Amino acid sequence: MIDRAKPPLPGLSGLLNPAGLIARITGNSAIKAGLPPGTPVHVGERKAQEVRVTIVEYDSTGCRILTPKLPTECAVPPEKPGVTWINIDGLHQVDLIEKIGACFKLHPLTIEDICNTTQRPKLDLFDDYLFLVVRMQNYRPESRSLEQDQMSLILGPNFLLTFQEKSGDSFDGVRRRISAGKGRIRTMGPDYLAHALLDAVVDNYFTVLEALGGEIEELEEEVLNNPDQATIHRIHLLKRELIMLRKSVWPLRELLSALMRGEEHELISAATNLYLRDLYDHTIQVLDTMETYRDVVAGLLDIYLSSLSHRMNEIMKVLTIYAAIFIPLTFIAGVYGMNFDPGSSPWNMPELSWYWGYPLALGLMAAVAAALLIYFKRKGWL
Amino acid sequence: MIDRAKPPLPGLSGLLNPAGLIARITGNSAIKAGLPPGTPVHVGERKAQEVRVTIVEYDSTGCRILTPKLPTECAVPPEKPGVTWINIDGLHQVDLIEKIGACFKLHPLTIEDICNTTQRPKLDLFDDYLFLVVRMQNYRPESRSLEQDQMSLILGPNFLLTFQEKSGDSFDGVRRRISAGKGRIRTMGPDYLAHALLDAVVDNYFTVLEALGGEIEELEEEVLNNPDQATIHRIHLLKRELIMLRKSVWPLRELLSALMRGEEHELISAATNLYLRDLYDHTIQVLDTMETYRDVVAGLLDIYLSSLSHRMNEIMKVLTIYAAIFIPLTFIAGVYGMNFDPGSSPWNMPELSWYWGYPLALGLMAAVAAALLIYFKRKGWL
Amino acid sequence: MIDRAKPPLPGLSGLLNPAGLIARITGNSAIKAGLPPGTPVHVGERKAQEVRVTIVEYDSTGCRILTPKLPTECAVPPEKPGVTWINIDGLHQVDLIEKIGACFKLHPLTIEDICNTTQRPKLDLFDDYLFLVVRMQNYRPESRSLEQDQMSLILGPNFLLTFQEKSGDSFDGVRRRISAGKGRIRTMGPDYLAHALLDAVVDNYFTVLEALGGEIEELEEEVLNNPDQATIHRIHLLKRELIMLRKSVWPLRELLSALMRGEEHELISAATNLYLRDLYDHTIQVLDTMETYRDVVAGLLDIYLSSLSHRMNEIMKVLTIYAAIFIPLTFIAGVYGMNFDPGSSPWNMPELSWYWGYPLALGLMAAVAAALLIYFKRKGWL
Amino acid sequence: MIDRAKPPLPGLSGLLNPAGLIARITGNSAIKAGLPPGTPVHVGERKAQEVRVTIVEYDSTGCRILTPKLPTECAVPPEKPGVTWINIDGLHQVDLIEKIGACFKLHPLTIEDICNTTQRPKLDLFDDYLFLVVRMQNYRPESRSLEQDQMSLILGPNFLLTFQEKSGDSFDGVRRRISAGKGRIRTMGPDYLAHALLDAVVDNYFTVLEALGGEIEELEEEVLNNPDQATIHRIHLLKRELIMLRKSVWPLRELLSALMRGEEHELISAATNLYLRDLYDHTIQVLDTMETYRDVVAGLLDIYLSSLSHRMNEIMKVLTIYAAIFIPLTFIAGVYGMNFDPGSSPWNMPELSWYWGYPLALGLMAAVAAALLIYFKRKGWL
Amino acid sequence: MIDRAKPPLPGLSGLLNPAGLIARITGNSAIKAGLPPGTPVHVGERKAQEVRVTIVEYDSTGCRILTPKLPTECAVPPEKPGVTWINIDGLHQVDLIEKIGACFKLHPLTIEDICNTTQRPKLDLFDDYLFLVVRMQNYRPESRSLEQDQMSLILGPNFLLTFQEKSGDSFDGVRRRISAGKGRIRTMGPDYLAHALLDAVVDNYFTVLEALGGEIEELEEEVLNNPDQATIHRIHLLKRELIMLRKSVWPLRELLSALMRGEEHELISAATNLYLRDLYDHTIQVLDTMETYRDVVAGLLDIYLSSLSHRMNEIMKVLTIYAAIFIPLTFIAGVYGMNFDPGSSPWNMPELSWYWGYPLALGLMAAVAAALLIYFKRKGWL
Repeated sequence: MIDRAKPPLPGLSGLLNPAGLIARITGNSAIKAGLPPGTPVHVGERKAQEVRVTIVEYDSTGCRILTPKLPTECAVPPEKPGVTWINIDGLHQVDLIEKIGACFKLHPLTIEDICNTTQRPKLDLFDDYLFLVVRMQNYRPESRSLEQDQMSLILGPNFLLTFQEKSGDSFDGVRRRISAGKGRIRTMGPDYLAHALLDAVVDNYFTVLEALGGEIEELEEEVLNNPDQATIHRIHLLKRELIMLRKSVWPLRELLSALMRGEEHELISAATNLYLRDLYDHTIQVLDTMETYRDVVAGLLDIYLSSLSHRMNEIMKVLTIYAAIFIPLTFIAGVYGMNFDPGSSPWNMPELSWYWGYPLALGLMAAVAAALLIYFKRKGWL
Repeated sequence: MIDRAKPPLPGLSGLLNPAGLIARITGNSAIKAGLPPGTPVHVGERKAQEVRVTIVEYDSTGCRILTPKLPTECAVPPEKPGVTWINIDGLHQVDLIEKIGACFKLHPLTIEDICNTTQRPKLDLFDDYLFLVVRMQNYRPESRSLEQDQMSLILGPNFLLTFQEKSGDSFDGVRRRISAGKGRIRTMGPDYLAHALLDAVVDNYFTVLEALGGEIEELEEEVLNNPDQATIHRIHLLKRELIMLRKSVWPLRELLSALMRGEEHELISAATNLYLRDLYDHTIQVLDTMETYRDVVAGLLDIYLSSLSHRMNEIMKVLTIYAAIFIPLTFIAGVYGMNFDPGSSPWNMPELSWYWGYPLALGLMAAVAAALLIYFKRKGWL
Repeated sequence: MIDRAKPPLPGLSGLLNPAGLIARITGNSAIKAGLPPGTPVHVGERKAQEVRVTIVEYDSTGCRILTPKLPTECAVPPEKPGVTWINIDGLHQVDLIEKIGACFKLHPLTIEDICNTTQRPKLDLFDDYLFLVVRMQNYRPESRSLEQDQMSLILGPNFLLTFQEKSGDSFDGVRRRISAGKGRIRTMGPDYLAHALLDAVVDNYFTVLEALGGEIEELEEEVLNNPDQATIHRIHLLKRELIMLRKSVWPLRELLSALMRGEEHELISAATNLYLRDLYDHTIQVLDTMETYRDVVAGLLDIYLSSLSHRMNEIMKVLTIYAAIFIPLTFIAGVYGMNFDPGSSPWNMPELSWYWGYPLALGLMAAVAAALLIYFKRKGWL
Repeated sequence: MIDRAKPPLPGLSGLLNPAGLIARITGNSAIKAGLPPGTPVHVGERKAQEVRVTIVEYDSTGCRILTPKLPTECAVPPEKPGVTWINIDGLHQVDLIEKIGACFKLHPLTIEDICNTTQRPKLDLFDDYLFLVVRMQNYRPESRSLEQDQMSLILGPNFLLTFQEKSGDSFDGVRRRISAGKGRIRTMGPDYLAHALLDAVVDNYFTVLEALGGEIEELEEEVLNNPDQATIHRIHLLKRELIMLRKSVWPLRELLSALMRGEEHELISAATNLYLRDLYDHTIQVLDTMETYRDVVAGLLDIYLSSLSHRMNEIMKVLTIYAAIFIPLTFIAGVYGMNFDPGSSPWNMPELSWYWGYPLALGLMAAVAAALLIYFKRKGWL
Repeated sequence: MIDRAKPPLPGLSGLLNPAGLIARITGNSAIKAGLPPGTPVHVGERKAQEVRVTIVEYDSTGCRILTPKLPTECAVPPEKPGVTWINIDGLHQVDLIEKIGACFKLHPLTIEDICNTTQRPKLDLFDDYLFLVVRMQNYRPESRSLEQDQMSLILGPNFLLTFQEKSGDSFDGVRRRISAGKGRIRTMGPDYLAHALLDAVVDNYFTVLEALGGEIEELEEEVLNNPDQATIHRIHLLKRELIMLRKSVWPLRELLSALMRGEEHELISAATNLYLRDLYDHTIQVLDTMETYRDVVAGLLDIYLSSLSHRMNEIMKVLTIYAAIFIPLTFIAGVYGMNFDPGSSPWNMPELSWYWGYPLALGLMAAVAAALLIYFKRKGWL
């Protein structure tokens, strides 16, 4: 019943405050230290204003949508026909979640995990239900950063419970399909509904990858054309986004693999299993693309560094050419600026009073400069 | 029935627009987000002008080629003797593919996967047929880039369906062997035909590898002789091509391995299995060569960077030698350019009125220069 | 009975004496070389002043706390009901530990391992008991370093023995839950108590991670803004802390996994197993976060190095611009400082006696400077 | 029957034409694209002038050597006692190999693999025989490069067929042991003979490793003493040789491991198996050493790069010291070279007419130079 | 019976001759090329002056030590009670070892492996005995290098044979425990004796690690304070020592793991198995520490390189500051050193005859210098 949710983070300023990412990585799980396991505590930022519960009941003949007043109205008797989908948006009202949990006889650890929004995706088998945690990813174009939300699913014989951090539109497609009776969703059980929701989550990953792909394209352009110190930070940030994405997707892959094998439980029908295999393939594809991105981004770093080295070479060439050409000329000028007394000896700077003295000196300088220019030209520095 | 195919990409300008590669990596799978699974949508660029269906029927006695008008003409009754090979070029007419799929009772997910040309190579077992997806690679010398095409195979007891993105000449050899009755192809089942097609795909990989090998040779030459900023981009692009190639070949290896084990299905005969083992070995060889290339390309980067460093050293040496030799000389000239008044004191620059003053000064300069040249010679900088 | 404990290390000065870490890595296990196995020797620094033994006896009806005078008072007859938890703080009195070991018929190797505080976390199965070693980590903010303590657990059918290097407050929460009868701890066996203690250890890891996360944030700030040579040392130290943390957590994960499978022993009840699975998930999360940190820290090094390169470029630009602008100007001044005798010839520096000679010379210099400034501006160096 | 063998490569000039290696990596397998599998084509360079067939027949009582005229003379009836070893040197006469293959009822794929000299080492089980491919490595000291040869072995119940690319002396030791009846070779079956040949191949790897070890030593010397741009190429080439060597040895290890397990066939006796285990250990040792070499060579690269950096520092120090010392001196000389008119004002350069003016100026210069020298000495730059 | 032992290597001069290490890595196994397997040849340097055989017989009642004259005196009849431990120091007398091998019916391959001192640690199961090879490591402080010795163990039902390259003091502890009857060694079988010896070997690894740890500490100090080119060599050498150490320890771990599982043989009793598990844990700890060292040493390289870069920055700053300040000043001096004739025009250098001309010029110079100093101060370069 303890709610220690931190106030929402201020908008990340992306490039300048990458530090915020660290907070997102650890979550604030540390605040749970010292509490007995099974104590539900809301961990994470409070994203929804208030908790919203929606019930969708459907079978092949029709569907209806309810918004219950009391948690106890959620209860689903085991003999009830059709599929009941109860969706809860907002996780900070821990007591409400506990009451709903009691209706479905959820294990205390399950309730604890639902409230802790820093979970790693996982699948837990319990006697009466399957417990799944997955992470949704959204790309916010304005801050060029990823936003994560945790979704928990409880799959029972004739019901599906879903818990989200805040109301989103990711599942609108599924809702429409149910209300329109489109496809095979109304004729199948809650396992297929769970698949449909997971499918929506994975489809979202593709959208995120596309956005990141766009960023990589931009970065490549930048690295090739005018790389500066900000470029390396953007590469660094991109790398991190990929690391974080991977942390969501790898365990999801394991989860799906375990769900498909699943000889131990009978909650997944053979027909749904075929669809899970398809979903598994998509997840592999997401991972594959992510690995490719990682390699490409690592390559960008190499280009960036070589580009710095290359520039340094350019700068040094300019300096060297300038210095190497003018230093000898200045030396010649310096020689004829010496004040040896021509009167004391015929050997003392007789050039100074030659008729062609000055033009010859200038000519010598021009010759030296020309020779050096040819030399550098040959070296390929010009 | 939705066709959202993007217009064909403009010709990649290789070096200057590597960004196009990113698009190829992700495909545009993201446009499918929100659709129920099993909805066939054509994903990918539209490569063929129109869909072309060809049927080849053969057995040990002969063979004939048909071009059906209606999709329903494709149907193959289970008791039909011989082998029927139906090839479809062009995937953008989703309804046609659905009709053909209906004739062969294909699962909706199979049809969806056929139309989505961003699939990862895979093998799916269904009750009545095997579903294989592989990726063909072609090297386009003009843009020095790889072009990918997806091929799907449906292997049934007496038929083989193949779906390609566009008409190509990769399978002409197989067609010729069938029509000429050359080799053992006419005496064996559709499993051997599938092997023959996969063999053609893998043979193509060798051609691609040879082309990439040639590029690597060129790059090595370039890195050794006159590396510039464009070199690093070419290395980068080559790396990517190898990454993409690997994404096609690794899963193919798994696919073949699963096909060979295949206790679960009886569509692969023991005789064909021997050939699959051979094909598997070839795939391993492709992977091996690819890994070698990757190591070699990574080594090129090292050489490139060390070569930049080395050049910088050369530039700095030139600058240092010039500066270090002329700076002292200029200093000496500067000293004798001072205007101390010899009239005020016998100690004020008496050298200026020495009989050998000027020659001595020049001699001093020559001596200093010679000493420095010897010093740098000893240091090994000349 | 040999006590070769080193005197406590002087306070690590973190940045300046990272060498101390090495000592912590190897421990001083080498001092045991040559002794027969099973000889209990205290290895490690002596952290507690004196050994303190506490006994907590509890069942669902109540609990009492004892501080025994003699080791033999610790003995727990197998038929004794309830749970007996004996905690020993301080490991340097080897004979005392041997006597307690004798009461519980511990294997000599177990006793040896308890005394050697450089153990790797592990699980050993013996006939009558399970032997667990885990490592607690504490972050000391004052020296920005990690402090390790070893905890050994002996889990028997109705008792739990715990051995710690020194008294700490990590288990105060568990003690409070026992005395308050809060949660399910009083109704369950010693296996659940063991779980509760391990849970406290893992919760502590989260606290450590949070502290390290804070350090990483600071370092990022530093690398972006004013990196110097000390930064690289801090990165290096942080890397090491993560390496050391990982050495504690990886084996713990294996330990928990082995404990959960545990078909071979009957000391873990099914109910507790569920809690162990939860704990296992937390450990995976710790490892995950650690891997992320490692990647982020590795990225910091890249930024640091590129930042050094970038700075060098800046410095070189300043030098080059100064040199390239003033060297030609100085040359011009040098030319008009030459002493060619205008009297000997009309070609000898007639500019010197032009009416506008000096202003023209200054104008020429200004023009050259302006041209060069424009040139560098175009190159983007200004 | 198609022979498309390329003409032998011109002698590799090692350092200057490393490109040849690429060709060796891919082989020219691509020329096989489009041919049906099982078509024997000679792939690789033609190393032998003509094909040479030798038959060695032996049992515990004696041995005789034959050089058959016709391929059919090679046939070995299954009931023939003793061991028959048929060795074929030169693979370009594909029809001859096909005829020999027919005598022993070899599978078409086996014959194809024998002729293709770009095989990866492998073990194929057939009903009547085992088919092994291994790669021999020879170090050519004159070009400091590796030369590969493929050897194929067909192990039957009472015969052994070996196919080599050209006649070599690697197996002379084995031949001598057979003719001298030394050791246990004459008393054992063809499986032991196969082992003896494989043993000779692996022994050769040790020779190659020793040669490479020598090269590494030389390179280390070079990197430490006078590294130049050629050094990096040699490191690069060495890396490649190791990559290529590894491609031969890794699959050999798998091959031997499969051969030892070999429950599926009865062609390997238990006694020989013991010797195979020994051979397997040697192979592991070769791999181990190779890995060590790889690490050492990677380390050389690090030293090389750091050495470049270090040298740059040295060069820059020289430049900086020269510039920093002489620039102030030149400035002082410049000041006293100014032409301010002492007649116009007592403040205009009165130093010029001081009695000790010039010596003081020189003294000032000497003092500045000394101060700077001391400064650089303190910084540790001298 | 062939003895091709190389003469002992001259003392490694550590830093200056790291090449010697290469020789140690490959051993000189190549000299065996061409010999039939099972031919005992002494491979390795000859470390002992002469071969020394010692027999220790003991049971729970007592023990006696013998030094046999003839190899046949070593024979141990299978019914002989107690434990017989025969230790042979020095492996170059191959015929002696063969005779001893004959007494115990050792397989020829075993005898060959005993004589070849470049073995990888391994466990071979034979019908009557277990054959173990391990490598002992000693740290020689004077040359800062590792010295390896091979030990082979033959474990039979009532005897243990040990073969060492030279007499050492590693097993003195075990001998003392046997003669003193200390611990449980006299009451247990030869398997426990084998364990005791392996334990001594592993304990030695800890000593070596401690020495290497000390070297790492020193190196860290050096890298932080005054890194030079020698530092990188020391890092390189240290890396190699760790590579070599790992080559000894990894296979030992596998060996112990195989020994513990060991269902196939009955030579290891359950009681000893418990001790082996303990030993296995120690080996894991050695490996763990080694991995940590490797990471730390890799980090040192990073610091070294960044430190070079950092220094370069420092040098360049000094140069830039000097040049940028004095170049403008020298230019000003140059301007007033021009010889424009004030008599020809009032515009020709009127400053030269101003009353405050010279002080103004000096003041201008001071102002420019001050402005530049402030500028560099702001940039943080001073």
